[in-house]
Order: sequence, then C-alpha cells, then structure tokens
Amino acid sequence: MAAGQWDLIIVGAGAAGLAAGIYGARSGLKTLLLEEKISGGTAYEAPLIENYPGFLSIRGSELADKMGEQCRKSGAIIHELEAVESLQLNGPRKTVTTNAGSYETPAVILATGSYYREISVPGEREFRGRGVSYCGVCDGPLFKGKHVLVVGGGNSALTTALYLSGLAAEVSIVHRKDKFRAEEALVKDVISRKNVKALYATEVKEIMGEKFVSKVKVLETNKGQHKEINVSAVFVQAGEIPNSQLAVDSGVETDDCKCIKTDVYQRTNLPGVYAAGDVTNHPVKQVGTAVGQGITAALEAYAYIKQPYYRK
Amino acid sequence: MAAGQWDLIIVGAGAAGLAAGIYGARSGLKTLLLEEKISGGTAYEAPLIENYPGFLSIRGSELADKMGEQCRKSGAIIHELEAVESLQLNGPRKTVTTNAGSYETPAVILATGSYYREISVPGEREFRGRGVSYCGVCDGPLFKGKHVLVVGGGNSALTTALYLSGLAAEVSIVHRKDKFRAEEALVKDVISRKNVKALYATEVKEIMGEKFVSKVKVLETNKGQHKEINVSAVFVQAGEIPNSQLAVDSGVETDDCKCIKTDVYQRTNLPGVYAAGDVTNHPVKQVGTAVGQGITAALEAYAYIKQPYYRK
Repeated sequence: MAAGQWDLIIVGAGAAGLAAGIYGARSGLKTLLLEEKISGGTAYEAPLIENYPGFLSIRGSELADKMGEQCRKSGAIIHELEAVESLQLNGPRKTVTTNAGSYETPAVILATGSYYREISVPGEREFRGRGVSYCGVCDGPLFKGKHVLVVGGGNSALTTALYLSGLAAEVSIVHRKDKFRAEEALVKDVISRKNVKALYATEVKEIMGEKFVSKVKVLETNKGQHKEINVSAVFVQAGEIPNSQLAVDSGVETDDCKCIKTDVYQRTNLPGVYAAGDVTNHPVKQVGTAVGQGITAALEAYAYIKQPYYRK
Repeated sequence: MAAGQWDLIIVGAGAAGLAAGIYGARSGLKTLLLEEKISGGTAYEAPLIENYPGFLSIRGSELADKMGEQCRKSGAIIHELEAVESLQLNGPRKTVTTNAGSYETPAVILATGSYYREISVPGEREFRGRGVSYCGVCDGPLFKGKHVLVVGGGNSALTTALYLSGLAAEVSIVHRKDKFRAEEALVKDVISRKNVKALYATEVKEIMGEKFVSKVKVLETNKGQHKEINVSAVFVQAGEIPNSQLAVDSGVETDDCKCIKTDVYQRTNLPGVYAAGDVTNHPVKQVGTAVGQGITAALEAYAYIKQPYYRK
C-alpha cells in the first residue's frame, strides 16, 4: 500500500472522529484522521463536562486528550493542522486532498462538526466557558438557582430558555426584535413561565465580569437607553452552523440546515461515505451521542470495505 | 407529587439506562431507574474495556460504577434488585409495577439490554472474561496474533470469524452441522481466508485452561472421536437475545429478532415510550452506542414531557 493509500480516512478529530478512529484502527483498518486544528473538537473548549457518562466532572481538554491518546494507541494516525481542501467521493476509490498532500481510500467518515454563531460583542470570547455558553443542555445545570440570560429569538433560543427555566431561578430572554420568531406554541409556553422574562427590542452590547460573568450591558433600542443587568451566565443562541461545505461541494446530501443527512448506520447518500457527530442531522448534539455515531460509522465502514454483501 | 409518581422511569440500569438517568435528572426530571440485578448491565461483566472513548483501558465493573455514581449524583434514584413485573404503557399516564410496588409516570425508557445464549459446557462460565467472549468487536483486539475459536454457524458467527481473521493469527470455526447457515457470500469469503479453518460436524464439549483459556475439547460427531485444540480464546456466537418480553407484552413493536424498533429519536411506536441500548434494533451493540442512545432517549423524553408541540 503506497504512503498515500488508506483503508479509512476520517475528516475531523473531535469526539465523533476520535471514536471512529479508535474503532477503525482496532478493527485492523489503516486509519487516518485529518484535523485542520488540533484534535478534540468542540469538547476541547468546554471548561467542564459533567454529562459524559464515565466522568463525574472533567475538563473538556482533558477528555479530548484522553480520546486522542486512545485513538493513537489503537493504531490510528492523526494529522493535526492539516486542512482538507477538496474531496472526490464518487466511485469505489475516493481522493482526499489537503494543504499537505493527497490520499486515496475506499471509505470516508465526515466528522467535521459545527460552530456556534457569535454575537460579536466585547467580553463574549473572553468569558467563553466562564459564563458565556452556547449550549443549555451542556452548561445549564452549572447555573442552578441563578439568573441567566438567553440571547436570541428563534426556536433554539426559546427551547434553551424553557430548558433553563427548570433549573435557573430566573431566565431573561434578550431579543433584538419586538417579536420572537419561534413557533407560537413554544413562545406561549415559555413566556407563561413565572421565572421567565422577555426583553424585546433589546441588544446585548457587552458581557462583563471579573473572573466569571456577572453582568451584561444592553441597549433598549426603542428608548435608545443603555442598562446593566446582573446575570451569572449568558446563553448565546444565534445559530449553530455545520461545517458541511466541503461535503456539499462533493455531492453529499444535506437538510435545510445544511446538516448532513444520515441513516441509522451513519451512511450518507454516497456509498462508502459516512458522517457522524455535530455535522449530521441527528437531533442531539452531545459528546456522548457524537461518540456513539462515530463508533457506528467506523463499524459500518469496516463492513462496507471487508464485506460488501453485508448490507443488502 | 406522591411517592409513586415520577417524571421519567427507566427500566434497566446498564450503560444506556445510566446515561439516560444522568441526562434525565440533570434536566430536572424526577427520574427513577429500576434494575432487577445491580446497576452496570453487560458492561459490568467485561473484565477489560479498551474501546469506550475516554478510557484507554478500564475494568467493566469500574466503568459501570463510575456511571452509576454519576447517575446518582445527578439526582436520579436507582432501585437495584427490583424487577419490573408488568408495564401499562398506553395513554398519557403509564404504570410500572415491580415486585416492590407500583409507579406512575408520563414517560418510560426501556433499556433492558440483552443476553448471550450460552453453549452450556464445562468451563464456559468459569472462563468468561478470561478467554471466553461473546463479542468479537469488543474483545478481538485482545487476541492479536493468537489462535482463536469461534463457535456457531450463522451470520453472527461468520461475521465474527471474518472480523477476527484480520486480527488473530488463526481462526477456527466450530460448527455442529456440516454446513454453515450464514449467507453464501459471507461463507465463501470467510472460508477463502488463509488463516480461517472450518471444523464442521464438531461440538465443543469443554473449555479448559489454568487462569486463562488454553484449549478446548471437541467431539467430531461423524467419527465419534474427541480431540483437544490449543486456543487462546473462544468466541461463542450462539445468539443474542434481547430482554424485550415485557415490552412485547405491553404493545411495544419489535422486529423479527424481538429487538425493539426505534427511530432516530429513540421513540418506539407508543407515545412517551422510548428504548435505548442492546434491547433495540440498532445495528451496533457497544457501550459507546448504548450511551449515545440513552442520552437521546432522555432528552427526547424531556421534550415530550415539557414541550408536547416540540416534535410535530
């Protein structure tokens, strides 16, 4: 097998990609992971993960490092800081081209993740992981009994607010417009909760604090007045965007939100091409679900390569 | 809320159930797990798990204990040694009856797992986890370069043999009949491998060794002769049976193999009833995939309880 030839190439080395790498390599496949940044993905940035089964509480970077080490020890090769530039995914031999070279493989797993849209205000990056969060289910339980702020007006913002209303003492929803754009039933439910307050026509201008978030400065656009609100956390819900452009350009089908469509085997519309983790249209985006999908994708890729008759 | 009333009841406290418990309780649901044995499920019995992402190598019982502790600390209540005797799953209020009492809940997650059919020969239980295995993907990599034996003649036996042929030095398949009952293409592929040997009309009579498996005694039924074969591991593939009878009796739909049918949200055919882990028809049965399904089931159950309009 030439140096550029592999049994399995995994694009992205977050939780889904690393789980796939562990299973691919353990199955005896010559497995390569290509990661444009460093391995670990979104999990790497989480200051504290308390809901990945097996760890009561662990820094995201530590969990990511453990998975990375395990993936390498399983026999997979991880190329960090190597960005994939194009994919040719049709036919039995696929070509993956990066900024460093070109690789051939019969099977590809797309595990390129997603990113959260920022609201780009002072303090947002500074306090990320120290009060600024993009995921209510992940970080909500850290703020039990506190006052938290949700930024946004769509379904994800209102769903997050509803989720947080069961945990936090008080939830304020800050929205730039004077009407939420979420589903009416959801809006009704959320604003009927005693501990939820909707602040319409209001923009977050700055997130402030010492070590952790303690307040935000907002602008009430109708009055043209600034105001400060004391809060322990800011949940930004301005949108989650899958890193699926490369896949789209290569003929992989996505849904309305540009998430890659997969079936229960993590197959995409192209034979030998799988997807796992936050880039997919799976309804839940958690480390534990990404891991499960990565495992499934790797074992299915194995069956595809070694036993083409396995799935009829 | 009366003592017998819960937001979420999870039947079974293996990896899937515990993951669901962590997420259910963290979401603020009053969550009860009912487990007829002790918590941990199939994972508990594994002497060594090397493929659950995050742990390079961990005893199954230790991983199970960690998940159990995390589930309890999240706020879930686990009743061990409490067997569910009947389920009433229709309508918005469901009733779970055990040997100790009766509970009401709007949402149930079935995570009752499965068990492996044994071949019931001397040494099988004694060496379980010390050379006797029921899962090639789980334990195959522990026997790289060794001689291993697969017992069975169906698709799962042949698939296991094929998987092991890429890792072990030599794979012998012992089958009682003189013809495999697996798919023809699979049989052809497996017996064409240089390091695979098929032993037809042969029955395993005893599994032997000191601390670990070192040989098996077989009977060649046509000749009526006994023979000993030196092997490092015996992979029993006599069938995996889902613990789904209670579910079937309560109107939950299963497939031909009696595995519970679920969709991508882990929903069953009954509103408010979910299933996760080895009892489902998901194609992969690993701790990591059970965990992912448990998480999804819990978050979907949450959405069902709190936001009935959430899924249209």
